[in-house]
Amino acid sequence: MSRGELARRVGLSRTTLSEITTSLLERRAIVVADTDAATRVGSGRPAERLTLDPASGQFLGVDFGHRRVHVAVADASHEIIAAGVERYTATTPWTERLDLAFALIDRVCGTSGAHFGALQGIGIGVPGPYSGVRAGAAQVPWTRHPAAAGVDEAFAERFGAPVVVDNNMRLAALAEAISGPGNPDNLIYVRLADGVGGGLVVAGRLVTGSGGFAGELGHVTVDPSGRTCQCGKRGCLETIASVPAVLQACRDAGSSLETLEDLAMAVERRDPAVDVVLRDVGTTLGRVLGAAAMALDPDEVVIGGELVHVAPVIVEQAAATLRYELYPLPASAPLAVRAGVLRDGDGAIGAIAALFHQSPLLAEYPTPTGAGEQDF
Amino acid sequence: MSRGELARRVGLSRTTLSEITTSLLERRAIVVADTDAATRVGSGRPAERLTLDPASGQFLGVDFGHRRVHVAVADASHEIIAAGVERYTATTPWTERLDLAFALIDRVCGTSGAHFGALQGIGIGVPGPYSGVRAGAAQVPWTRHPAAAGVDEAFAERFGAPVVVDNNMRLAALAEAISGPGNPDNLIYVRLADGVGGGLVVAGRLVTGSGGFAGELGHVTVDPSGRTCQCGKRGCLETIASVPAVLQACRDAGSSLETLEDLAMAVERRDPAVDVVLRDVGTTLGRVLGAAAMALDPDEVVIGGELVHVAPVIVEQAAATLRYELYPLPASAPLAVRAGVLRDGDGAIGAIAALFHQSPLLAEYPTPTGAGEQDF
Repeated sequence: MSRGELARRVGLSRTTLSEITTSLLERRAIVVADTDAATRVGSGRPAERLTLDPASGQFLGVDFGHRRVHVAVADASHEIIAAGVERYTATTPWTERLDLAFALIDRVCGTSGAHFGALQGIGIGVPGPYSGVRAGAAQVPWTRHPAAAGVDEAFAERFGAPVVVDNNMRLAALAEAISGPGNPDNLIYVRLADGVGGGLVVAGRLVTGSGGFAGELGHVTVDPSGRTCQCGKRGCLETIASVPAVLQACRDAGSSLETLEDLAMAVERRDPAVDVVLRDVGTTLGRVLGAAAMALDPDEVVIGGELVHVAPVIVEQAAATLRYELYPLPASAPLAVRAGVLRDGDGAIGAIAALFHQSPLLAEYPTPTGAGEQDF
Repeated sequence: MSRGELARRVGLSRTTLSEITTSLLERRAIVVADTDAATRVGSGRPAERLTLDPASGQFLGVDFGHRRVHVAVADASHEIIAAGVERYTATTPWTERLDLAFALIDRVCGTSGAHFGALQGIGIGVPGPYSGVRAGAAQVPWTRHPAAAGVDEAFAERFGAPVVVDNNMRLAALAEAISGPGNPDNLIYVRLADGVGGGLVVAGRLVTGSGGFAGELGHVTVDPSGRTCQCGKRGCLETIASVPAVLQACRDAGSSLETLEDLAMAVERRDPAVDVVLRDVGTTLGRVLGAAAMALDPDEVVIGGELVHVAPVIVEQAAATLRYELYPLPASAPLAVRAGVLRDGDGAIGAIAALFHQSPLLAEYPTPTGAGEQDF
């Protein structure tokens, strides 16, 4: 619309409206689309027609994992317009991770042409428990590096935008809940990666728990006399179903696997020893999910992480075990068990979803902290 | 207040107000407390002073267990004014249970002088899963008797009041959440009785799950090669921590116990074989609660049922196991683990609480079905 049409529509004087549009144009929230020269009937200078710039609002999602950071940028129409990943090691300090993330963001924005003229907010996923209630440090006693203290302040300072921080597994659960085929009110999400974590949706809401630890399925004990976990307990699910644990179990069974790619090849050639290991992992995972599902009665259980795409038999076996565990319940609406649809970037996408703050999943979720009071 | 004072206060004519008070007096919602004769300064007939009758609104709570029915009646001030219990056997058909419940209600109301002049609603707890979404049958595949079909209609017809039906363990969880010392937003409740059931409060709301089965902790598998459960699976928590299972385990350990009273005496004389059994039960229970707590991160875990009052060591041992299971979590606010404060009538009290429908715990809970659309 032209400035004149806009002024009539919103009932402002042309002078006032012109001031507003000048400011919006300067901030690149709107752009000049064309002029009305072609259709103009009267005389005088053709009027510029203004339109919303899809790039007028950007939402930045950042997912810090144990060994890599993913970033994703969405525009005002909620489309992902840029994404990227940068690896580091489990011992990389947080200051360095932040620098790597900032450089990555500059790079993907440079490549894609995205600009942060109107950055609306930043969602950040961090490993380990996070209460989501206040800006501040993620206290992660069982990670080997200092906690993600000050991540939110560092981003708020650099980009001058409001920041939401939450546990990255919980954000991935959110991303699966809104991206998957179902529209579940009750969902249990678990992700098998370097560690094992998860997130819950109960009665249509993402669950934080009393201290921000809800969904920590990786540290449920499955074998009290099992391997020592990095958390200090013995026999946690993570000691059996994390990627390093699965690769180790395959090696213990005589297969010389080092990476997920090796595992993919072993699965392809139907290595029987590897198959047994994977089925055992699926059964153990199914027991933990079964106990959680007996407590929560979900519509859907989602098993995420690169591992389950490489080894779908884990999902298959976990689903069978889950069905056995839930056998006492009338199967009016049988539980759906599926692999995650999102791949590695799920946490970054979940972080953006948390920013949009429009999902009923996020009702009563804390509002973002940081620069100013903004609605998304 | 007198009718004159009331009319001034609410701004109605004395004639209109008189019509209303006459109707309320007839329905016994209000009563004449006294007259103002003693304090009256002017002349004329002393004016009657009217007051709310605490008995003006009654709320009936009914809790059908596997072997007994509890009823409780609350008045308009939410005080319990009458309560009672009637036993039956696990094979008593539902028609007979209903007759027993109706006779019990008549009896306790006769004894207490309670009358149902203004019955506001009926809350009913039934064993086994219940979705709470619609009036109708509780489908309980693993109970040996026909499901509680038509319970709601039978009560609605007899008393002409709206009826809410829900799983009795969930109602007990509600009763504990609102009666206990804390005011927990996140609570896991488990009850050890003839069976083992439970209920969850997540983010300040009672959880039903997708099909009404949330909280069924009794059928979490704790030993895949254990005893056959009445549900058909092996080694459910119920096969270890229900009252009959605990008594059986004590007998297997050489103690000749038949009843909870026998157990109480054995606990009192510090029978070492019984102590070992009870500690094992506590440890197993603690593992199941630990897995649930790792998923849900509650403020409080409550273990209810007569058994834990007889054998508090079960709670003690479960709490110790739970603390071990949750060891990886920073103990900023350590989890409270306690025995239920409510005794046998908890389900009936929870059923009344569900009726009041005022607790934020019940936000978005289905509204009662039955006679008319009433607010509580």
